[in-house]
Amino acid sequence: MLRTELCDLVGIEYPIFQGGMARISDGILAAAVSEAGGLGIVSAASGDVDQIAAELDAAKQRTSKPIGVNVMLRGDNLDAIAQLIADKKPAVVTTGAGNPEKYMEMWKNAGIKVIPVVASTTYAKLFERAGADAVIAEGGESGGHIGELNTMALVPQVCDAVSIPVIAAGGIADGRGAAAALMLGACGIQIGTRFLLAEECSIARAYKDKVLKANDASTIVTGRRLGHPVRSIKSKFSREYARIEYTSIGDDELEQFAVGSLPAAVSGDEGHGCFLAGQISGLCKKEQPSAEIVREICEEAEALLLGGKKWVK
Amino acid sequence: MLRTELCDLVGIEYPIFQGGMARISDGILAAAVSEAGGLGIVSAASGDVDQIAAELDAAKQRTSKPIGVNVMLRGDNLDAIAQLIADKKPAVVTTGAGNPEKYMEMWKNAGIKVIPVVASTTYAKLFERAGADAVIAEGGESGGHIGELNTMALVPQVCDAVSIPVIAAGGIADGRGAAAALMLGACGIQIGTRFLLAEECSIARAYKDKVLKANDASTIVTGRRLGHPVRSIKSKFSREYARIEYTSIGDDELEQFAVGSLPAAVSGDEGHGCFLAGQISGLCKKEQPSAEIVREICEEAEALLLGGKKWVK
Repeated sequence: MLRTELCDLVGIEYPIFQGGMARISDGILAAAVSEAGGLGIVSAASGDVDQIAAELDAAKQRTSKPIGVNVMLRGDNLDAIAQLIADKKPAVVTTGAGNPEKYMEMWKNAGIKVIPVVASTTYAKLFERAGADAVIAEGGESGGHIGELNTMALVPQVCDAVSIPVIAAGGIADGRGAAAALMLGACGIQIGTRFLLAEECSIARAYKDKVLKANDASTIVTGRRLGHPVRSIKSKFSREYARIEYTSIGDDELEQFAVGSLPAAVSGDEGHGCFLAGQISGLCKKEQPSAEIVREICEEAEALLLGGKKWVK
Repeated sequence: MLRTELCDLVGIEYPIFQGGMARISDGILAAAVSEAGGLGIVSAASGDVDQIAAELDAAKQRTSKPIGVNVMLRGDNLDAIAQLIADKKPAVVTTGAGNPEKYMEMWKNAGIKVIPVVASTTYAKLFERAGADAVIAEGGESGGHIGELNTMALVPQVCDAVSIPVIAAGGIADGRGAAAALMLGACGIQIGTRFLLAEECSIARAYKDKVLKANDASTIVTGRRLGHPVRSIKSKFSREYARIEYTSIGDDELEQFAVGSLPAAVSGDEGHGCFLAGQISGLCKKEQPSAEIVREICEEAEALLLGGKKWVK
């Protein structure tokens, strides 16, 4: 069975994290992934302390296994959310969009493993010095907010830059990607897009259909002009954003155009929805229980890893 | 020793292609890589039939092992170059920037394996139908002209889309990347950037120094506005191009700004040079003979592939 040092660090059976997708990764999805032996991660992106507490409680009612929470270090209410996390004591907190140093001591004193998402060696080294237990090196293949570097080039460079464990993310949806990530030096993977098709994922039918119908050319990056590039599946909204992005439209108006587009996607609004998903959508072809997703990825990766000698003669 | 079906298809010892880098990959570099057991590839991007013939002859004088040639299917003189290739009969022709169908029969009748570079499943399927012997799936990590998809997401999707062999390119410079590519379903790798540091590569000192000093954040993509994105190491030229790209400058003037920037880089002109290189530059830390590069990559990949069982308990 697929097992790395990440399993021991976090207390999980398989080295697979389910990405904390804003407004999508709730307690039900996270619990299903954790019950399956991976690490389910609740998103705290709503910014609403009571709602985050409710999702963490919902997850804990469904599983006694470790649960994670993902915090975007941007926006209001961060101190209250950080305190809630310290009180709720999930096994792991993953962070994005900022420096977790301010909350590091509080979280670590609560026994929580702190694992920031990074898109460069610079931030990997910075967060290692700040006390991170591991980092998630996420390439630009992924859905949602992306950096400049891609997984194949980012992961080995981050592995060389830090001595804490590295988890690979971006462009991974099956056992091939998992085995490749281990070869690159990672000790685990984080998967978002494929879990959009988990039976326990509550996004609207229209969102799941977009992932199911996607091919390799179905995603688009918008938002580079404002410094916040985002990858989503091509849609009425994203095509229109791309069309106006490099016109004379003002920054404020452009930003305003995107307001509400993520909740719109989650509820299936094809007119204004921004359907975040990664380049690997084209490989995600069926809806399955989370447990089946975790099991398939592990079995495929195990077979590849045990069969590596076929290429050495 | 590292060996896949690609070795049998092309008649080489190790499944490593040296990318055909425009104005850089000459007969001396190609011969050194082929002598080392990989496939050296001469670039035909100069467009000058006599010069291409001379480089192919130079390679053949230095090695009796298979040699390849890379043709960009754009620009003048294509029919004459295609005919020269049919006459010279290299083992392999790799193609970029267009559809090789027009020359497929002529080349295949000459006993040449035709292996197009693709950046999507659509072109992979199109070229398979046209008779390609294999495809090189190149992710946007790579230097030079790039597509939209990244290696980690592109390679498995291309592998699923075609039944001919797939070679992975983009973001690969060591045995970790080679082993990862095989896990993704590829049967070999193509490497450009690391061969810029081969002792047999004749680019100017300033170009090699830029690669040696690069870190993971050192490359930049320019040219998206004109539909021809190109990755290079940040330089006076590329920063200035990026600055003016989304100003009101006209398309013609923007295109004119870049004329001559590649030969300028090759000759070490830091003012106007566009120093093409991939995101993996940060991993390329020393100048070595080509034979040492090939051997190091193979040995590292072999050890990883034979050790895969350590992750299965």
